[in-house]
Amino acid sequence: MKGEKIEYYVSVDDSLSKVIHDINQKEDKNITDLFDFLAHESVSTNPAKKNNVQDCATYLEEFIKKIGATHVEQIKTKGHPIVYAEFLSSPDKPTLLIYGHYDVQPEDPISLWISPPFKPEIRDGFIYARGVSDDKGQVFCHLKAIESWIRIYGSCPVNIKCLIEGEEEIGSEHIADVLKENKEKFKADVAIVSDSPMYADKQPALSCSLRGLLYTELDVFGPNADLHSGQLGGIVQNPIQALSIIISKLKNEDDYVLIPGFYDDVEPLSDSLATQLTHIKENDIELANQLGVDTLFGLKGKSTPERKWFQPTLDCNGIVGGFIEEGSKTIIPSKARAKISMRLVSKQNPEKIFEQLNAYIQLIKPEGVQAKLTKLNVANPCSINIESKAFKLAQEAFKQSYHVEPKIVGEGGSIPVIADFKDCLGLDTVMMGFNLPDDGIHSPNERFGVTNYKKGIETAAIYYKLAENIL
Amino acid sequence: MKGEKIEYYVSVDDSLSKVIHDINQKEDKNITDLFDFLAHESVSTNPAKKNNVQDCATYLEEFIKKIGATHVEQIKTKGHPIVYAEFLSSPDKPTLLIYGHYDVQPEDPISLWISPPFKPEIRDGFIYARGVSDDKGQVFCHLKAIESWIRIYGSCPVNIKCLIEGEEEIGSEHIADVLKENKEKFKADVAIVSDSPMYADKQPALSCSLRGLLYTELDVFGPNADLHSGQLGGIVQNPIQALSIIISKLKNEDDYVLIPGFYDDVEPLSDSLATQLTHIKENDIELANQLGVDTLFGLKGKSTPERKWFQPTLDCNGIVGGFIEEGSKTIIPSKARAKISMRLVSKQNPEKIFEQLNAYIQLIKPEGVQAKLTKLNVANPCSINIESKAFKLAQEAFKQSYHVEPKIVGEGGSIPVIADFKDCLGLDTVMMGFNLPDDGIHSPNERFGVTNYKKGIETAAIYYKLAENIL
Repeated sequence: MKGEKIEYYVSVDDSLSKVIHDINQKEDKNITDLFDFLAHESVSTNPAKKNNVQDCATYLEEFIKKIGATHVEQIKTKGHPIVYAEFLSSPDKPTLLIYGHYDVQPEDPISLWISPPFKPEIRDGFIYARGVSDDKGQVFCHLKAIESWIRIYGSCPVNIKCLIEGEEEIGSEHIADVLKENKEKFKADVAIVSDSPMYADKQPALSCSLRGLLYTELDVFGPNADLHSGQLGGIVQNPIQALSIIISKLKNEDDYVLIPGFYDDVEPLSDSLATQLTHIKENDIELANQLGVDTLFGLKGKSTPERKWFQPTLDCNGIVGGFIEEGSKTIIPSKARAKISMRLVSKQNPEKIFEQLNAYIQLIKPEGVQAKLTKLNVANPCSINIESKAFKLAQEAFKQSYHVEPKIVGEGGSIPVIADFKDCLGLDTVMMGFNLPDDGIHSPNERFGVTNYKKGIETAAIYYKLAENIL
Repeated sequence: MKGEKIEYYVSVDDSLSKVIHDINQKEDKNITDLFDFLAHESVSTNPAKKNNVQDCATYLEEFIKKIGATHVEQIKTKGHPIVYAEFLSSPDKPTLLIYGHYDVQPEDPISLWISPPFKPEIRDGFIYARGVSDDKGQVFCHLKAIESWIRIYGSCPVNIKCLIEGEEEIGSEHIADVLKENKEKFKADVAIVSDSPMYADKQPALSCSLRGLLYTELDVFGPNADLHSGQLGGIVQNPIQALSIIISKLKNEDDYVLIPGFYDDVEPLSDSLATQLTHIKENDIELANQLGVDTLFGLKGKSTPERKWFQPTLDCNGIVGGFIEEGSKTIIPSKARAKISMRLVSKQNPEKIFEQLNAYIQLIKPEGVQAKLTKLNVANPCSINIESKAFKLAQEAFKQSYHVEPKIVGEGGSIPVIADFKDCLGLDTVMMGFNLPDDGIHSPNERFGVTNYKKGIETAAIYYKLAENIL
């Protein structure tokens, strides 16, 4: 980290303007190269496509070699390989660790695609293909920025390390181990993750936090077999009803979670964040219409952005018990199960909350049944320091490429790799995303705007230059 | 109906003792004939076994012809046929309409059967075969009693009509139409249904009531698609939680149903019934152990027999929503569904209660979701007059065969055909069942005690004689 006072480079800087010019010149080539990447059916969850995923990794490795990496390799994992590359310029310069993923969601349902998911096509200014926004196009924003820097100057203004994994869509199960085993190799000043959307068209955003996760499964056990609800109805507790009673007691009417101690480690929003939030104007009525509900619902007295980014919540993700086919069957089931997950914020600790939830469930469970809570997944909440230099550089980079101040937002979901960067490598992360919220990631007809792709490349190129003497 | 004063025949009556003697003599033959009936795989719900069901009906028709019916036919329905037989002795005698069914439950899971379900076998005094208790063995109790009467005296002491259907296990869908279209043919003094268990070994029982049924499906609709519980958790109502809240408000902690008006048409137990109930001693601890629960649960202040027979109840028979596979998926589902059924008693009307339930659900449903209630099945509650002659004759018949007073019980389930007999034919029903509660009907290794089979035949034979001059 060099220099305490930040002086931003501006876009009239000579060295940067040549790179921006090159990016403009190479627009068509940048698109056709991305098309080649998109043609690989790298669906990580599908065992039948294991070879496609491997081919995609190899294609990526070769592409990175061609654009001038100082080192590139495939790091084997128990699952799909990680493609790791270095573009080192000078030991005196700061180092960025850029994270992305080359694996994609399944293409189902195929019938809803207008053009084939793995034959990219441009329509009305958008590139349509599976994975183009999530995350291949965003990975290429960086690789193409790097390529232009190297083409014009022989190297980038900073040292760049790229870590592009093949298992993000299946839970990034193996990356933490790889990070722990390669601490020296991945040493950097900051991590850059480009795998999230902008706030809106022409309005970039930077995330200042991610919610954590506690994902549990609750089993309620009643009689040792399904019973005839006529012959025995009225004399045993029904596990579905017992489970419903437990669930109904997890939150109150105002959507506050009732687990004792749940809010103990939730700190109030900082003044600067509260101020930032006033810049976010959500139209609740429009959003409700879009989601198909008559009204939004959540913590009374809290705004929609605060509720989805900075407050914890509790949701049932699934429930099942008894007879669920068409028609009727008169049973009292022997058991029922719910998937119950919580999004956590601030200093909330998923392990501690699991214990609190379990104790509470044992307390409130109705008589005549047993309740068993199992922990399935955890992720710590993350906060990103919006006063850090790396963050302020990202604000400036977006400002130069989009000519507007990026909005500061939160991320309601959990990206475990960001906590892994902190925990395994001690690295802070900046989340710079380039696609739009309605680009249909995980859905048919996923897309990425041609302009957003180009602006993404520019923004990355600007960031590298801004970081040169400051980080 | 003849004669106002009831004078019971006793077992020393000459004509009856010869029949009882014959039943004893023919014990082996009665078993081998039943074995032939049991060998037919008359699984009514399985389309692949349609021919087996038909073959079973034809076998039954032929068997009934052989034992001396004055008339026998197969009545076609839109599903499986009904076997109808008449054993008429004299227009001056009372007429019994005996109901049973020749169709059986599926044999799954086949691997749990010790002997093959359709190859009957005797072990430790029990006949093991699918359908032997439910209801082929009980049908044969009557046919074998009739056969002995005809063999010894050429006819029965009463006129007997037998209506043996092939669709009881799939809801008796077509029988009401057949009853309505054949009112004259099925004219009788009383219906006898032998399709329920005794109270315990050596302790027969007579049921004085059946609970009715209202079976519904409740759909709760939230957003128009599954949402990402990270990105949007905290701003929409979750349909699973909304459904749980609704379910949790359907009953209170003491198991009372909270639907306004639900108990309006529940009349208090009559004094004579309350007295009868004091003769039923349930061991709650033993029953809880048997069912695998740590405690029974139900209406506070009401005994177990009253709760399962004479009080209405409400049970969730199934629930489903969101992600129910192994592992975790972080969604807020767009909808959730529960199957909710009520057992009804006394004068409760299922149609009226459906309206009350629907109004109540619309009232209590949380904001941000829609709730839709659908009616799937209804059955009116039935009460059986325990002061009727037909009922008192059944008490006496059991007393003569088992040398104990039969207990008067209720039936918690619903047998719609009994309401159909009342509604379509104006007929009261007496439920005389011969198997035991732990005979495993609907389960693997269904069985029927050899002694209970013989006693059932005797009891039927005695009943016909007792009814001769009294009904």
